[in-house]
Amino acid sequence: MAVGDDCAILTPTAGTSMAISKDLLLEERHFFSDVDPESLGHKSLAVNLSDLAAMGATPRGCLLGIALPRYDADWLEAFSRGFNRLADKYQCPLIGGDTTRSEHDIVISVTVLGEVTQPFLLRSRALPGDDIWVSGTLGAADWALNLLLRQKAGEVLTESETQTLQATRHALEWPEPRVALGLALRPLAHAVIDLSDGLVQDLKHILHASGVAAVLYESLMPVNLSLPDDDPQQLRQSVLGGGDVYELCFTAPQTARAALQAIAATLPVTLTRIGQVHVGQGLRVLDAAQQDISALPAGFDHFRPARRRKP
Amino acid sequence: MAVGDDCAILTPTAGTSMAISKDLLLEERHFFSDVDPESLGHKSLAVNLSDLAAMGATPRGCLLGIALPRYDADWLEAFSRGFNRLADKYQCPLIGGDTTRSEHDIVISVTVLGEVTQPFLLRSRALPGDDIWVSGTLGAADWALNLLLRQKAGEVLTESETQTLQATRHALEWPEPRVALGLALRPLAHAVIDLSDGLVQDLKHILHASGVAAVLYESLMPVNLSLPDDDPQQLRQSVLGGGDVYELCFTAPQTARAALQAIAATLPVTLTRIGQVHVGQGLRVLDAAQQDISALPAGFDHFRPARRRKP
Repeated sequence: MAVGDDCAILTPTAGTSMAISKDLLLEERHFFSDVDPESLGHKSLAVNLSDLAAMGATPRGCLLGIALPRYDADWLEAFSRGFNRLADKYQCPLIGGDTTRSEHDIVISVTVLGEVTQPFLLRSRALPGDDIWVSGTLGAADWALNLLLRQKAGEVLTESETQTLQATRHALEWPEPRVALGLALRPLAHAVIDLSDGLVQDLKHILHASGVAAVLYESLMPVNLSLPDDDPQQLRQSVLGGGDVYELCFTAPQTARAALQAIAATLPVTLTRIGQVHVGQGLRVLDAAQQDISALPAGFDHFRPARRRKP
Repeated sequence: MAVGDDCAILTPTAGTSMAISKDLLLEERHFFSDVDPESLGHKSLAVNLSDLAAMGATPRGCLLGIALPRYDADWLEAFSRGFNRLADKYQCPLIGGDTTRSEHDIVISVTVLGEVTQPFLLRSRALPGDDIWVSGTLGAADWALNLLLRQKAGEVLTESETQTLQATRHALEWPEPRVALGLALRPLAHAVIDLSDGLVQDLKHILHASGVAAVLYESLMPVNLSLPDDDPQQLRQSVLGGGDVYELCFTAPQTARAALQAIAATLPVTLTRIGQVHVGQGLRVLDAAQQDISALPAGFDHFRPARRRKP
């Protein structure tokens, strides 16, 4: 711990508010038991930093609680290596936490703290006429997850599927939180969210909170180039519904287009315009023929059966 | 959430630092599966508020992450009732968190935030000549735990044991965080800790951090009056080694005695002087005949096998 004993101590910069995000990651629910512990350490912090990014917050510190069924020094060291490298990168030092024993599963609980100033980036500030943007590319994390699930179920992947898995699993296991983008968006964006549960579901949160409607164009989606195009339904599901992306989706007035293109040119991240906000309610997604896609991917339900079963 | 969407937002009072505590509570590790969910909600927050109390911090807000093997509305409602009542009592509103599904066990992760000002109450500031004090009474939580463990192992308790369990389990299941005491101690105490792992082990943390020695007098211990005295070894173990107490142990100069007695008279909590800090290192505990107790209770090891087995 930095200063405190029973507590961590953090002294905020005068005039700022603290943004706090907290996530639980559970074995076989949020990660496979045999996941590389170094990537798990990275991702445990990344998903929380992604929440700070969506608030346009500057990371200040983090706390880690971890429970393991048995003490495993190698595992813990690798986990810490992945965690600490990302903490260093974003100047978000580990200021507290504890390690304990669990009965069955690995449990990881991370809390991150960041600084924000008014006005806050809120989901509720999307306005009719706004463009809808997304950072990075879509679909790779979900595609990798599906291939891993099939592999764990005992299926033998084809050579081309194995290549696709190699090309896409980095997106699943090593997501990069868009911290610098979130900060750059503060003066420009109206509403921001990170795509933890998938584009359709997360954008709906913005629309609902803002009391507006939107239309997306499937042909404009920045589909990850590693994905094969021989299964259009699977592609659609992964791009529109796949979670674990940790890219930022945001709305901004059309007057911000030039400034946003300048940001994309400066930061190592692409920005793509994928739709518009309208008066009304609900989300439409139009396919390449400008027809409504009627069956949009379902949202992520935190109480549905685990999507990652043991082999 | 109060303001944020992806994050909770908390605006600190100017000139203060944030004290942050975070604890994981795991089924069958930190609580029994059949525990009253209302008391579990209370205790999940209480153990974190207790850490704030030991820092002399004013609670400001909390976050709750909870994972359940299945959705159970009644259980969640009772849990929330216990949690929220304590949050209201200490003006520590729930500002964020999430509920998700686990594969096997209930997992509870709480983060609390409080405000502190310099100088901080630190474990490292005990000085030779200080009195050692403890709040409340000792031994009840550990005694109740042992009776519950025997009951769960299939033993039938005697009538007098059943009565003792009834009298002591409140201390185990409904600990009261000493928030007001921690605030009152700020100008008086040198070093403060809360007794989550037992008096001997937690006091050793103070001694080690401060580079000092101490002597405790067993005959001065504020033993909970519900405990039977027919098993002196068990009594000693529960009083000196029993965890889950959440009373404050602290050191203070002898000049603070009158002020501390005045505090005890104002707050609804007893304060008892149980020993002194000395130059040197190590902890001695003297029995009623002023002889050293050679076998002090062992410390709590977070990787030893679970102390609470399934029946």
